[in-house]
Amino acid sequence: MKLKSSIALAVLATAATVQPGLAQEAAVLVDETPLNTEIGYIFTTFMFLVAGFLVFWMAAGFTMLEAGLVRQKNTTMQLMKNMGLFSLAAIMYYLVGYNLMYPGDGWAIDGWLGAFSIASLEPVGLADTETDLTYASVGSDFFFQLMFCATTASIVSGALAERIKLWPFLIFVVILTGLIYPIQASWKWGGGYLDSALGFQDFAGSTVVHSVGGWAALAGALILGPRIGKYKDGGVHPMPGANLPLATLGTFILWLGWFGFNGGSQLYMDTAGNVADISRIFANTNTAAAGGAIAALILTQVLYKKPDLTMVLNGALAGLVSITAEPLTPSLGAATLIGAVGGVIVVFTVPFLDKLKIDDVVGAIPVHLFAGIWGTLAVVLTNDAATFMGQLLSIIIVGVFVFVVSAVVWAVLKGVMGIRVSEEAEITGLDVGELGMEAYPEFAKG
Amino acid sequence: MKLKSSIALAVLATAATVQPGLAQEAAVLVDETPLNTEIGYIFTTFMFLVAGFLVFWMAAGFTMLEAGLVRQKNTTMQLMKNMGLFSLAAIMYYLVGYNLMYPGDGWAIDGWLGAFSIASLEPVGLADTETDLTYASVGSDFFFQLMFCATTASIVSGALAERIKLWPFLIFVVILTGLIYPIQASWKWGGGYLDSALGFQDFAGSTVVHSVGGWAALAGALILGPRIGKYKDGGVHPMPGANLPLATLGTFILWLGWFGFNGGSQLYMDTAGNVADISRIFANTNTAAAGGAIAALILTQVLYKKPDLTMVLNGALAGLVSITAEPLTPSLGAATLIGAVGGVIVVFTVPFLDKLKIDDVVGAIPVHLFAGIWGTLAVVLTNDAATFMGQLLSIIIVGVFVFVVSAVVWAVLKGVMGIRVSEEAEITGLDVGELGMEAYPEFAKG
Amino acid sequence: MKLKSSIALAVLATAATVQPGLAQEAAVLVDETPLNTEIGYIFTTFMFLVAGFLVFWMAAGFTMLEAGLVRQKNTTMQLMKNMGLFSLAAIMYYLVGYNLMYPGDGWAIDGWLGAFSIASLEPVGLADTETDLTYASVGSDFFFQLMFCATTASIVSGALAERIKLWPFLIFVVILTGLIYPIQASWKWGGGYLDSALGFQDFAGSTVVHSVGGWAALAGALILGPRIGKYKDGGVHPMPGANLPLATLGTFILWLGWFGFNGGSQLYMDTAGNVADISRIFANTNTAAAGGAIAALILTQVLYKKPDLTMVLNGALAGLVSITAEPLTPSLGAATLIGAVGGVIVVFTVPFLDKLKIDDVVGAIPVHLFAGIWGTLAVVLTNDAATFMGQLLSIIIVGVFVFVVSAVVWAVLKGVMGIRVSEEAEITGLDVGELGMEAYPEFAKG
Repeated sequence: MKLKSSIALAVLATAATVQPGLAQEAAVLVDETPLNTEIGYIFTTFMFLVAGFLVFWMAAGFTMLEAGLVRQKNTTMQLMKNMGLFSLAAIMYYLVGYNLMYPGDGWAIDGWLGAFSIASLEPVGLADTETDLTYASVGSDFFFQLMFCATTASIVSGALAERIKLWPFLIFVVILTGLIYPIQASWKWGGGYLDSALGFQDFAGSTVVHSVGGWAALAGALILGPRIGKYKDGGVHPMPGANLPLATLGTFILWLGWFGFNGGSQLYMDTAGNVADISRIFANTNTAAAGGAIAALILTQVLYKKPDLTMVLNGALAGLVSITAEPLTPSLGAATLIGAVGGVIVVFTVPFLDKLKIDDVVGAIPVHLFAGIWGTLAVVLTNDAATFMGQLLSIIIVGVFVFVVSAVVWAVLKGVMGIRVSEEAEITGLDVGELGMEAYPEFAKG
Repeated sequence: MKLKSSIALAVLATAATVQPGLAQEAAVLVDETPLNTEIGYIFTTFMFLVAGFLVFWMAAGFTMLEAGLVRQKNTTMQLMKNMGLFSLAAIMYYLVGYNLMYPGDGWAIDGWLGAFSIASLEPVGLADTETDLTYASVGSDFFFQLMFCATTASIVSGALAERIKLWPFLIFVVILTGLIYPIQASWKWGGGYLDSALGFQDFAGSTVVHSVGGWAALAGALILGPRIGKYKDGGVHPMPGANLPLATLGTFILWLGWFGFNGGSQLYMDTAGNVADISRIFANTNTAAAGGAIAALILTQVLYKKPDLTMVLNGALAGLVSITAEPLTPSLGAATLIGAVGGVIVVFTVPFLDKLKIDDVVGAIPVHLFAGIWGTLAVVLTNDAATFMGQLLSIIIVGVFVFVVSAVVWAVLKGVMGIRVSEEAEITGLDVGELGMEAYPEFAKG
Repeated sequence: MKLKSSIALAVLATAATVQPGLAQEAAVLVDETPLNTEIGYIFTTFMFLVAGFLVFWMAAGFTMLEAGLVRQKNTTMQLMKNMGLFSLAAIMYYLVGYNLMYPGDGWAIDGWLGAFSIASLEPVGLADTETDLTYASVGSDFFFQLMFCATTASIVSGALAERIKLWPFLIFVVILTGLIYPIQASWKWGGGYLDSALGFQDFAGSTVVHSVGGWAALAGALILGPRIGKYKDGGVHPMPGANLPLATLGTFILWLGWFGFNGGSQLYMDTAGNVADISRIFANTNTAAAGGAIAALILTQVLYKKPDLTMVLNGALAGLVSITAEPLTPSLGAATLIGAVGGVIVVFTVPFLDKLKIDDVVGAIPVHLFAGIWGTLAVVLTNDAATFMGQLLSIIIVGVFVFVVSAVVWAVLKGVMGIRVSEEAEITGLDVGELGMEAYPEFAKG
């Protein structure tokens, strides 16, 4: 057994005694014994698998959050949509998305769309083709990146809950995860023009993932319209979620998964520097969520005299979204503040959307779109590689693309098959009306 | 910060430019700098710990799945059974199972049963006995393998829910986890005759774990009989689960845990080839679950005009069971299809069991037994090391052993102490009748 | 694909054929190829991140456990307290706690309180200051240690549920996580006098974490008083939890998180010996929980003729707390028994507290304080480095400090702002009375 004390002492002593003049030598010491390439490959690959299963877990988090924030009568449908959307995202990203997003050397030729093809993993045991161990296995990279694609679809399902039909929603998911997400993601992470021409910085996807989900949700919410009774008689009629412990569980799951979301986006764990960076990212991600939650807690106490749990949950999530564009360079203090601003944004924009009669059942648009924009702009505060114009232009380009394409898809779906359940089904509840299966069949309605 | 683009480009570029003729050299490059043995030992051991805690988490998944699929009045009992079964499995596998399953050199001598003894871990700091660092620590291997044993018992508890008494069930668990599971597992994973004589291939246990749980459950369900009222008047009376969000949460937990279940069964993470294989397994496991879910979603839509959430959940689980016998060799496409067939099997066999008046509360037999058989046979599609006859014979041998021994144990328990609660307790609910504690005491019955 | 059989055979064969006389050579073999320091740094750092996210997950476990064990009408408040306490702990440990707990070379000078300052992580890429790669990144150490601090606060929230006001509770959390916890933790883990003068052994915190939470809760419970109606008319009136599946989920989450709690406290994963020790800790932690659960299951069956689920859940948790002071040195059998004694303690001390009219809503004091004391004393059974007097004195010193300071803080809060909700709010429920938001608004009360 080792004493915690001795280690901590050693670390702190080290930190305390280092002189500025020694920095050069220190850097040398870190680098003088390069790792075996294969070891770095194992480290990075395993890191992707761990980070990937954490981001997978976010699918459960969105499901619980949404199942807790919808009303009883629409819960089974919300569970179904989440099971369906994740499964479809997995298949579409394999069939189309992965190679479309990473067009490789084909970028210059294929131009704006990348390379349509089916993802394939390296052969068993690497026996036949692997020549380069400087990164990670294709399987781990695919697994990790897939989860980001699925996250985008999860964001949409919450906003459009309680009135959208199952199949048109799932068809939209197919297009979002197979085409819309990967195309715009290729512009940054696939080496496209946002990356090369605008110097766009978006570490783990405040824009590339979260705002994309938000824009698609916004387009859907506008075309779908609000729930019956939500804005009748000129007022906003609250429709509180049926199961707040589930919503809280979902928030904790998302918080946990976000360590993988942001930490894994370091993309390398093959050196001391990289693993120390991943550690910074974990610590910053955590404190940003805490900042968002506390900001929403205090602000709702001040504004409404009673703290609002759903705002606190969304505040934590907004803190996480806010730090996602740059979880590495901020100090702990800066990360806390960046997250706190995210929490403030949520508290103010949830009622703002209601004023516009845009009905977002779980607050997905404030959390993922508005805090995502904030987080993307906030990169310039701590990372010199980012410029305000580069960030802003990228936000606009991605936003216009996703919003317009999504709106067209929603409109076509509306025209062709209808996207909204019947008024009767909406009032009865989608569970009985559309699925014939209640989520809580033995619990009396109160 | 590293750009995702550059890495992805490098990987894809590599994949694109490799010529067949370079394969030989590539293989050399991978192998030319062998890892320090101790590093491989640390990698593999840590991998077992991570995979092991993921499989542990499956115990929570089964608990939530079952707690969501039973009726309100039997929920506390279902929670109790799951807490009890995991705890007993942990103790029995330590007291008997681990060494019985891995008889080591004693196999030839001890013949069919292996070596009864108590598991013991290597000494602190490895100071006294460790001479071989080519695998992993005994502690990590024990921890990982224990979780598979416990899984078998979890499968049984779901099928027999809502009418079996607590203590006879727990006594069965003691025998299942201390004797039945380890004995048959030794035939394959302990180096026994299924492995050596039949060339049986079962990577992570479609047969050795899942069908074993399924056979034990089937024997129990036949001897225990269906719930009162389930098959009265010649019809099948649905008894829907009380809490579908819990059931969905359980499914997501199981899905997450399965990455450890299948990934950890690679058993080594000491080379680039092994970690790349684990990555393939993660990706294939995920896509098989997606395939199973989507197959069940589409099929229930077509058959019943309304998609059925419990079928979709069980479809995902059946996809996972189906890929478990061989998660490594299939391509992503093959894995998706193998999983999809699992989903189809569930949709057709759940009503089939009802036709036979075999009452399986949560669908454990379709998911774990029927999809487990399918997955075991499907190994021959992608792995040349497997033969159809070797797989089929092994399925039959394991099935006959587990079914017969389980049936004898259930029959003895029935004769000696009774295995079924009183009619009154079953109608009132096991929570009040047997435990005096409701799961949802303040919620009105609907 | 590797056969499980062959590996297991190899391991067992190795274990079987090692002669005592070979131990010397074995030790040499382990040590003869020292790892590259940077590799050890990556291993240990990544281990802290994984262990850290598991301990983070315990925050969700406490939340679900408590949300399941309080009554419906106080559930939203319990969720709010848990979101708030974790977020505040994160911020306070960053602002004050971390450096206060690890005063480093400043210990001798600063004496009893350590060094107040703000935690800061190493620079991006380690470029400027890092000279020592023998431990782990500061970021990972901070992330891991933070979670222990937050755990302390989680323990308090359960005991004081259903009657304490939100803001005084959160102010107490600020003091507990910013000052009380780090100061006493520095006495052991920061290299203070409990460590140096008394030889106190507390591997992962049966005393330093769990009993601290328990003492703070006990002081609060005494000053706050019991819930209205709990002890009226000379009897004890049970107030059963509203949602036992949630409580069971919380227990499983805590069990999972505990692998990180205890395993990560090995503090190094840079050698075969250290990773093998972490494996022992995982296995012992698991079996101690199982022992605690089974002991409570059998004991409640014998005492009350009906097994009690909440006792089984708390028995598992008490098993975990009991093994936390020394999860490494016990054998599997000793760990099971140490955990089982923890389970027995819970079954006897829950009614004992009720006899004293100390109202602990979730059983936090029996689980974390009483089992924590037992676990701390039990170290002497398997670890020669511990002395009974050293353990006992340390328990008393920590207990007196935490209880007295907590009592003063609670008393001041009571005097200044009041700590208890109005009688009306308590009877109506804190959710409606204090927050205006029900946790289950659509479910009828039964």
